[in-house]
Amino acid sequence: MRRALQAARDAASQGEVPVGAVVVRDGTVIATAANAPRRLHDPTAHAEICAIRAASARLGSDRLEGCDLWVTLEPCAMCAGAIAHARIARLYYGASDPKGGAVEHGPRFFAQPTCHHRPEIFSGIGEGEAAGLLRNFFAGRR
Amino acid sequence: MRRALQAARDAASQGEVPVGAVVVRDGTVIATAANAPRRLHDPTAHAEICAIRAASARLGSDRLEGCDLWVTLEPCAMCAGAIAHARIARLYYGASDPKGGAVEHGPRFFAQPTCHHRPEIFSGIGEGEAAGLLRNFFAGRR
Repeated sequence: MRRALQAARDAASQGEVPVGAVVVRDGTVIATAANAPRRLHDPTAHAEICAIRAASARLGSDRLEGCDLWVTLEPCAMCAGAIAHARIARLYYGASDPKGGAVEHGPRFFAQPTCHHRPEIFSGIGEGEAAGLLRNFFAGRR
Repeated sequence: MRRALQAARDAASQGEVPVGAVVVRDGTVIATAANAPRRLHDPTAHAEICAIRAASARLGSDRLEGCDLWVTLEPCAMCAGAIAHARIARLYYGASDPKGGAVEHGPRFFAQPTCHHRPEIFSGIGEGEAAGLLRNFFAGRR
């Protein structure tokens, strides 16, 4: 999660909402990514999507079986769907997101009977720091 | 939708689940894409995501305001989330997807109070042909 938080800080320094994500397999970092929709002109370029795409490219497969995803913020519906498609084994996230989160809020994607893959989920890891980065970012934009 | 159906046929000919998508603005096609997760080693490479990414790159913006998305199959949660992030104005889709769809099934993403952007939605366009392509594809794999 330290790496994911550093990626979140990198996102903020680029003017992006500070969220970072890391894909890990057997203790080895496969991919790290910062949230970058504005910089990349890509509405799908959330940290989770970028990390999953990079890890899949690196491993040469559209399934990341046995891989874990660490992300500083509760994933949205788009990212939760991508996590299921990628067959991520374990999801670790930091801050909850009552506005856009889709794990414990809104669509509660992984709890839906139509969800075809549900990772093990661990929340609240590094929550204080992840939430603080977001708070500072939005305060600075007001 | 004819273009989207052609993209779906292209997907099938590459061994991918036949789904196609097109982004249109003011009657002009901005991007067309076929479903390609296996070929691209990218679990996020659904037709909708690929079309949205290509259109955003072409227009140089992470928001596709005023753009419509035509897709042969009901979008999943990942793609529904991307449609909202991209601020797609109108969503036209063909076949319903009771297993993986997230518009009229499962998470019913656009009906969630946490959904921050809801396009106008028109379903059932070219449904018979879209569903036929999928049926033939899966029958051929058995």
